[in-house]
Amino acid sequence: MSRHTLASLASELGVSRQTISNVLNAPHKVKPATRERVQAAIAAAGYRPSAAARQLRTQRSMNFGMRLFPATDGINGAILDRFLHALTEAAQSAGYRLTLFCADSDEEEVRQYEQLLDVAGLDGFILTSSRPDDVRTHWLGERGTPFAVFGRPWDAAGHSAPADHPWVDVDGAAGTEEAVRMLLTQGHSRIGFLGWHTGSPVGADRRQGWERAMTAAGHGQDLHVLGVEAEDTVAGGASGAALLASRGATAMVCSSDSLALGAMEKLREAQPGAFLSGQPAGPAGRAAIVGFDDTPVAAALGLSSVAQPVEEAARHIIGLLTHELAGKAAAARSGAGAPPARQLLLAPRVVERIPLPLASPGPS
Amino acid sequence: MSRHTLASLASELGVSRQTISNVLNAPHKVKPATRERVQAAIAAAGYRPSAAARQLRTQRSMNFGMRLFPATDGINGAILDRFLHALTEAAQSAGYRLTLFCADSDEEEVRQYEQLLDVAGLDGFILTSSRPDDVRTHWLGERGTPFAVFGRPWDAAGHSAPADHPWVDVDGAAGTEEAVRMLLTQGHSRIGFLGWHTGSPVGADRRQGWERAMTAAGHGQDLHVLGVEAEDTVAGGASGAALLASRGATAMVCSSDSLALGAMEKLREAQPGAFLSGQPAGPAGRAAIVGFDDTPVAAALGLSSVAQPVEEAARHIIGLLTHELAGKAAAARSGAGAPPARQLLLAPRVVERIPLPLASPGPS
Repeated sequence: MSRHTLASLASELGVSRQTISNVLNAPHKVKPATRERVQAAIAAAGYRPSAAARQLRTQRSMNFGMRLFPATDGINGAILDRFLHALTEAAQSAGYRLTLFCADSDEEEVRQYEQLLDVAGLDGFILTSSRPDDVRTHWLGERGTPFAVFGRPWDAAGHSAPADHPWVDVDGAAGTEEAVRMLLTQGHSRIGFLGWHTGSPVGADRRQGWERAMTAAGHGQDLHVLGVEAEDTVAGGASGAALLASRGATAMVCSSDSLALGAMEKLREAQPGAFLSGQPAGPAGRAAIVGFDDTPVAAALGLSSVAQPVEEAARHIIGLLTHELAGKAAAARSGAGAPPARQLLLAPRVVERIPLPLASPGPS
Repeated sequence: MSRHTLASLASELGVSRQTISNVLNAPHKVKPATRERVQAAIAAAGYRPSAAARQLRTQRSMNFGMRLFPATDGINGAILDRFLHALTEAAQSAGYRLTLFCADSDEEEVRQYEQLLDVAGLDGFILTSSRPDDVRTHWLGERGTPFAVFGRPWDAAGHSAPADHPWVDVDGAAGTEEAVRMLLTQGHSRIGFLGWHTGSPVGADRRQGWERAMTAAGHGQDLHVLGVEAEDTVAGGASGAALLASRGATAMVCSSDSLALGAMEKLREAQPGAFLSGQPAGPAGRAAIVGFDDTPVAAALGLSSVAQPVEEAARHIIGLLTHELAGKAAAARSGAGAPPARQLLLAPRVVERIPLPLASPGPS
């Protein structure tokens, strides 16, 4: 497919490239006779100013970059996929696209930023998985590159840290707190917590919600016995659940659906029907295991789970970026809408489900 | 952050933009004295030719586009996520990025192609989920836009159709055939097939492999009884498995891991341990249910499954695109490596697993 370029068209018409550019972008600068001649030639040639030419003019690629993390666990990973979908949709509604890249480390991610800014001219970045003393946010902040983070800033001790950059996060502790309250309402009091053994701030946050709710309900005395940590896998959940059950837990809140699924499988194995139905304390048919992230597997198996509003988080992140870019492009213009909150902590909610067993009689 | 442009630098130095461009791209065309003056100014200003300027020169965005389908089912969806990761990595190794977009229909996908070609100057597209009489491949083919499809072309009757465009696919029928052979080896003969009720060519292909292997083994007489269709969900798998078990199936091959997971849950409910262990015909501890796609859920629960080599498919697709683009850029150049196969059908393999029950004793 041959394509007319600015240069080929200019040489054909015997005018400068600047003249053609003016006809397209500042027609008042061009003499009417020339303007008409160029416009006719443009129409005849089917010439369209290329993306690159438009980018040169606007200094905008209309494109945000995001690192794609390897899918380590397709169960928990489902939430980042939902986030990616929502992000792509929200960006597209605002006229932006999403460019994906890979990196093996945060330092490599920063090198990718540099390349993507220089070579692809990206307009900004979306970061996931914030961590203490984040080299990525430092680098972007110093360069003045627009970015927004899914995840609040943490300090080295794993506590929420103040930071000026835009971020959105989900209040994990509020989610596990609500899960405990649901189980208390069902009649449970020995409610265990099954968390990650990684020591991540996100995991610690989820555990704190359980501690808070248990203490508030007057069940704070056995927290050291009823809180266990395991590898964040189905197998880890199975062994953690066995330990918790041996310590008298009648219900448990888990840091992930992988853990909850392992717990469910284990306890179904050990006491078919009993534990899962919220027995002995809960009403029949209620799940006494609560996972985290409300993954498709949880939905499919009837596992209660804490749901993160990732779609809302994605829309807010795109809102933050487009607001900042609009501000840069038209700093002098007034009357823009109210700016989106630069830091936003969203509340999750507990989705309560009745687990399979499937009610119909088994096959003969 | 202020940024020197070609124009601002040219006006500062009192030379034309073309001169600066020549210094950067064709220095032999510029008088030594001017060249040195411009080079010094470039170094002092920290001017870097922008991505857009480079694109104008190369007519390349170094970017491929792909439609992101909504995650309808996080269990089966895991395979497209693996594909996306592998694609991003392979593209990056070849110097390309991946741009994602959304569309509600194939027609909308075509409109997105048009925009992405005009506005973002993308170099090519990756298509997933090929279908009979595909409007997308027609459109791209007519425009001469480079593209490659994950999925072979189908005719209206749902059979493999000849087509000249580049594609990669996985031989689903070969996968279900191998799954049947594995179950035959374990001693099963009444092996059921649990498929989708959608009538998709991909689903029909997977069913054909089962039919072929059963017929070859002399068990072709009951295919109409032992092949059932269900909604592609865990619940659909549960009801389909109940039906198959009532018809005397002792093992089953499923079109997806969602179906297989439902079958596993259902049969564990009905006859704990028995069916799953490959009883009565199979050796103890062997799974008599085989899923498709080898998702993380299958791995976590010890479900056997047919694994698609999606990483290999992704690398081949990027190889096809980059080869075509290199060919376009340097058609006259000779000595390029052997071209990658324009059409490639990859063989899947069956991953055999022993299902949980977790071996350790249950909690007290």
